[in-house]
Amino acid sequence: MNNLLVAQSGGPTVAINATLVGVLQGAKIYGKIDKVYGAKYGIEGAIKDNLIDLSTLMSDYDKLDTLTYTPSSALGSCRYKMKDWRQDETPYKSIIETFKKYDIKYFIYIGGNDSMDTVDKLSEYCRMNNLDTRVMGAPKTIDNDLNLTDHCPGFGSAAKYIATTISELDRDISVYDVPAVTIVEIMGRNAGWLTASSALARVNGGNGPDLIYLCEREFDSESFLRDVKNKLSEKPGVLVAVSEGIKDKSGAYVSDIISSGAVDNFGHKYIAGAARALEQLVRSRIGCKVRSVELNLMQRAAAHIASETDISESVMLGQKALSCAINNETGRMAAVKRISNAPYLVEYISVPVNEVANHEKTVPSSYIAPTGNDVTQEMMEYLRPLIRGEINLKYENGIPRQLVLF
Amino acid sequence: MNNLLVAQSGGPTVAINATLVGVLQGAKIYGKIDKVYGAKYGIEGAIKDNLIDLSTLMSDYDKLDTLTYTPSSALGSCRYKMKDWRQDETPYKSIIETFKKYDIKYFIYIGGNDSMDTVDKLSEYCRMNNLDTRVMGAPKTIDNDLNLTDHCPGFGSAAKYIATTISELDRDISVYDVPAVTIVEIMGRNAGWLTASSALARVNGGNGPDLIYLCEREFDSESFLRDVKNKLSEKPGVLVAVSEGIKDKSGAYVSDIISSGAVDNFGHKYIAGAARALEQLVRSRIGCKVRSVELNLMQRAAAHIASETDISESVMLGQKALSCAINNETGRMAAVKRISNAPYLVEYISVPVNEVANHEKTVPSSYIAPTGNDVTQEMMEYLRPLIRGEINLKYENGIPRQLVLF
Repeated sequence: MNNLLVAQSGGPTVAINATLVGVLQGAKIYGKIDKVYGAKYGIEGAIKDNLIDLSTLMSDYDKLDTLTYTPSSALGSCRYKMKDWRQDETPYKSIIETFKKYDIKYFIYIGGNDSMDTVDKLSEYCRMNNLDTRVMGAPKTIDNDLNLTDHCPGFGSAAKYIATTISELDRDISVYDVPAVTIVEIMGRNAGWLTASSALARVNGGNGPDLIYLCEREFDSESFLRDVKNKLSEKPGVLVAVSEGIKDKSGAYVSDIISSGAVDNFGHKYIAGAARALEQLVRSRIGCKVRSVELNLMQRAAAHIASETDISESVMLGQKALSCAINNETGRMAAVKRISNAPYLVEYISVPVNEVANHEKTVPSSYIAPTGNDVTQEMMEYLRPLIRGEINLKYENGIPRQLVLF
Repeated sequence: MNNLLVAQSGGPTVAINATLVGVLQGAKIYGKIDKVYGAKYGIEGAIKDNLIDLSTLMSDYDKLDTLTYTPSSALGSCRYKMKDWRQDETPYKSIIETFKKYDIKYFIYIGGNDSMDTVDKLSEYCRMNNLDTRVMGAPKTIDNDLNLTDHCPGFGSAAKYIATTISELDRDISVYDVPAVTIVEIMGRNAGWLTASSALARVNGGNGPDLIYLCEREFDSESFLRDVKNKLSEKPGVLVAVSEGIKDKSGAYVSDIISSGAVDNFGHKYIAGAARALEQLVRSRIGCKVRSVELNLMQRAAAHIASETDISESVMLGQKALSCAINNETGRMAAVKRISNAPYLVEYISVPVNEVANHEKTVPSSYIAPTGNDVTQEMMEYLRPLIRGEINLKYENGIPRQLVLF
């Protein structure tokens, strides 16, 4: 028997189920797979023998279509970091037992950085133990911080949500003729790609954010206050986009510095976000109307405004990962290589997963304006194709259809 | 000359421009209007003689189509509350001067409670001064709290955004197999209609929020903690929807009670929202993973997921308001009367604006579950038709097109 196991891991995105669908389509197309299983809650499902049979789903086109546009991980997820097998072999032995029990010839793990570390370690372990299970990774992360791939599935849809939302908020904040600052916090502890995508609100000539601060640049509160005052002298409504992970020159998170004294009635520390901290700063130092907005979980869950480019590529990367496994590749990750911007053309390749795991691709200097409060044209050229196209989402009773596996 | 002046007021919604379009369509159709002006920044534009000519826009169908789906008030807005003319006649005199200067025969004011108060006072003032300008109101508010209309333009779209977002968050929080509570704060200081619409995430069999607390019911922290613990014993991911305006039995805002001690490094008080306060409460008293999410400005600005029912009705109400004015009505508001739920049928009527202004329609008891932590079937029947249908939104370069008037 040549059976396939697939699992999903890490934080949710709106494209990770599209990649699962790509794997299932591949299993149908390539004709070399007997049965398809899904591990529940990531690699933990393989460790605990907690699988579900996906063979019927594989042939149900209507369900696959719905699954493609359902956000988050339909198979569940985990935040499990595998230790080196030399330190703790137990989980490896359990996984191998599961592989043997279900005749797993191919294992596809869809996830981000930590998941690629698992792919790396597990593929090595299989090789060491002469087990011919092929272990392949398929990328996924809204953070867009994976090495060796031009961009990451899930990012384009999050960027489309952010660009659209910023363009809508720009309309919202322009409505009154009084000075007001609105600070929008966007996900990204170490990589500012998502925050940068707020600039895409300008693609049709709109204003977009007046100021953009990425976590790659040292954040200086005095420069920030000066920037805001300058913008307020030009127009009443000022819109600011900041990465959640902005840090000062000592490397401390801005949110911690400003809000560290705050304690609630229970004596518990307030964990304020970066935008909330800056809101307090503007209130104290400038004194105008100010509010903060966190795009929070919505930026990774808003499947209703997914990018067609992102979803299509996510499906293709699932197919690519399986096709590589069938071609005897192991310990590698399916990836996107950009050929050109105009027309936007890409190739699907595979890359060594050990060069992906435990690396973080942050925003290069040339993509950040020298002033440190905006992005460059180069960044815009990189981002623009990724949010293009709208998905053919099916609604029922006014809300999008979803597929729930368990 | 029979000229028309139109203005928008109050907080932004995604449907208020659709009503403006309805007024402009009416001006084109009824054939009794010579020129159309818009007052910038609400009634303040009429006071300060700050108008723009909308006559060209009126005939540009492509622009009108884009304007229909552009969120917020294209003419700008204000939060101006008119005093009684017996107390301060100055602004009334300025308005009348503007009316005379531009030969304004019809004035349509699109807005919420305060705006209807302006319509009431201004129409009375015109009558008292033998001025034949007809002053009509067209409703708008995501809060859905206006008297004498079955529901309010802008509410259905906000409800569709909330229902869709809650269904997406429900997928997001279901991904890990560990106990976690997610608390979503929804707009509404005194009326819980928007929070109630989170229950629409269940229309296709989905789970929706596990617990729903409206501001109409006294909020008891101990009952809340008990409810959350009960739900956690049934499933790992618990989703809670709360109105921003939930109050305890003394009438104090829950956010104030729990967070009142919090002060930041500047010595400034933290203004935490209700969800943030409850997040701290769950962290202290239950100790599991917990986070809060504010739907914030997005719930009133997310035009990309507007309800077709809402947008169509908003256009119709703009037309209705103008048609009433042309038929010599004044001091009244266009409104929706529901004829039946299945099929969903409505009539457009006009109602006396003095019975709308300064009233607030809160959620009736029969719409709230006796347990106080959910809504009833009656509420669901009321809400369901309002989010139906998707708009034919035009995208350009990956984000929705918008029309900016100035």
